[in-house]
Amino acid sequence: MDVEKVFHMSGGVGKTSYAQNSSLQKKASDMVKHITMETILQLYNEVTPKSLGIADLGCSSGPNSLSLIKDFVEAVEGSSHKMFRPLPEFRVFLNDLPTNDFNSVFKSLPDFHRDLKKDRNERCPAVFIAGYPGSFYGRLFPNNCLHFIYSSYSLHWLSKVPPGLYENGKSINKGGVYISKSSPPSVSRAYGNQFREDFSLFLKSRSEEVVTSGRMVLITLGRIGQEHVDRGNSLFWEILSKCLAISASQGEIEKEKLECYDVHFYAASRNEIEDEVRREGSFELQRMETFEIEKQVKGGDSYGTAVAMTVRAIQESMLYNHFGDGINLDILFHNYAKMVDQEMANQQINPITFLLVLKKL
Amino acid sequence: MDVEKVFHMSGGVGKTSYAQNSSLQKKASDMVKHITMETILQLYNEVTPKSLGIADLGCSSGPNSLSLIKDFVEAVEGSSHKMFRPLPEFRVFLNDLPTNDFNSVFKSLPDFHRDLKKDRNERCPAVFIAGYPGSFYGRLFPNNCLHFIYSSYSLHWLSKVPPGLYENGKSINKGGVYISKSSPPSVSRAYGNQFREDFSLFLKSRSEEVVTSGRMVLITLGRIGQEHVDRGNSLFWEILSKCLAISASQGEIEKEKLECYDVHFYAASRNEIEDEVRREGSFELQRMETFEIEKQVKGGDSYGTAVAMTVRAIQESMLYNHFGDGINLDILFHNYAKMVDQEMANQQINPITFLLVLKKL
Repeated sequence: MDVEKVFHMSGGVGKTSYAQNSSLQKKASDMVKHITMETILQLYNEVTPKSLGIADLGCSSGPNSLSLIKDFVEAVEGSSHKMFRPLPEFRVFLNDLPTNDFNSVFKSLPDFHRDLKKDRNERCPAVFIAGYPGSFYGRLFPNNCLHFIYSSYSLHWLSKVPPGLYENGKSINKGGVYISKSSPPSVSRAYGNQFREDFSLFLKSRSEEVVTSGRMVLITLGRIGQEHVDRGNSLFWEILSKCLAISASQGEIEKEKLECYDVHFYAASRNEIEDEVRREGSFELQRMETFEIEKQVKGGDSYGTAVAMTVRAIQESMLYNHFGDGINLDILFHNYAKMVDQEMANQQINPITFLLVLKKL
Repeated sequence: MDVEKVFHMSGGVGKTSYAQNSSLQKKASDMVKHITMETILQLYNEVTPKSLGIADLGCSSGPNSLSLIKDFVEAVEGSSHKMFRPLPEFRVFLNDLPTNDFNSVFKSLPDFHRDLKKDRNERCPAVFIAGYPGSFYGRLFPNNCLHFIYSSYSLHWLSKVPPGLYENGKSINKGGVYISKSSPPSVSRAYGNQFREDFSLFLKSRSEEVVTSGRMVLITLGRIGQEHVDRGNSLFWEILSKCLAISASQGEIEKEKLECYDVHFYAASRNEIEDEVRREGSFELQRMETFEIEKQVKGGDSYGTAVAMTVRAIQESMLYNHFGDGINLDILFHNYAKMVDQEMANQQINPITFLLVLKKL
């Protein structure tokens, strides 16, 4: 499967769209927003460019991206005023895969600019927003054009399902869709290798695009220890695997197709990330925080339902592409929500997130 | 009507899409392609930037835009080789209104890059393609970032329907949708004023984005003499006006709605364009050519049908927005095609196009 041509968050603004189901990601990004803001201001005060280049990698199609861009602009504006510095020009680069619903982001731009102008008696900051479609595992932007890169809940997606999972066209990971208890050790090796290759290419590509002293704030799912199978992110894939097995047992999807379905996801450990940053050598890891998404869900929905809707908005394109339109995702994710709630009733689920602050050397 | 939020070429790749109905525009751009290519090479050989910024204003969603970008890259590549110069980095900025179907352009990017790599043993040129949504009647791009701007069949669209056409909320141009025989002189004045205001803002905005000696190639519909009503582009609006009158007489659309429908289009004369370039003062008009689109249509379709499909792909968004979904565009444009063919049988229709080459002073 060509991830670049298939994978995308569910577009539009409907009930199952990513736009409507990205509040967990928003909540998490908000928890560490003070660090993100602190970092962009540090960068700005250190480099004080006349034209500030900011990128959001994996911007997706919901309201999260533009809302954060507004915060960046206002923070830098505030700092400029305080220091009696002229306001820089903002160059904003929104990135996601070419199948992302950029149209819906672009349609909200006139309102974004109108809001920015509102309540400003003085000169409004000049903000130029562009969409740069492509995989961040490779070059995206011109040389040395960026000062600050932000990426939230994107880097745990690999460039592809690790080819090491397949032998003679058959998956060696029949029991699950990700590393699971029944996976042979070669499965986690294949995932680990793919992560190292991808993350290294990510760092190298960005190093050519970011100016010296430029910063990156990367928020990504990870795992707490060296064990791959834990009560964290791997458990969500275990549950998806179980739900798909139910669909297969009911004849809704083919068993053979299920056996060769694996996700292009990896929850790296702190050590793996630190090692790769050091090995690649272009960036200094200035800060690395571990945090958990809050499990309080507003409104009448259970935590399980919120997770199910989130995973659906993310996985829908891949599931339809692999299993065909016959798969009933309403039932699948109904089961998913129930199972997450059951697991939670038994024992806490602790999916963890890393926040990384990197400085270009 | 907010043109920025409504107006767009029909998206997707279906039978009535702009992608399928922009061959007239392509044919015309091809007729003057040698001038476009000559201009970008002159610019490149004069300025020889390490990083070449190219924009296409009004790129729309069909194949025309990326196909031309490929030609630009290959022309500059050829010239670099000949002169033993290192290949520049290409920064490509695709612009159209925020409602344009950028998604379909972006989806074809992986194939664009694959084609570019094909047949190249040596290093492939680095081409970074971005979408910059927004109205070109105002700033779009960062300061001094562009070397070459191209715009084909876009600048005859005004930023809005001239407000001067309305008095106490009612149109003073009841007989037509554009300047027609029955229009009072205040109608052509309102259109002319809007053109001057828009074109001047266009030039001023671009002058801040284009480096000194940068070039613009602008291809736009126009009129041959000072008369507004002629056998050129105005005739196509006259025919649309007649077709809408038929729809109104058949009760399909409201007469009141028809009376206040006017297009945000203007066919400027050579003098008007020259005057405005001189008055604004940032660019030198190096060349201005007049040419006509060929009227030979390949395949079984008549010229009238080809024009009707083209006008439909361009006008659909505006017609639906103004008249509601009840309007039957199949019938309307069937009538339109017939009338164009009848007119052609009587007497030639000569819609003219201008090509402008401008150099930043």
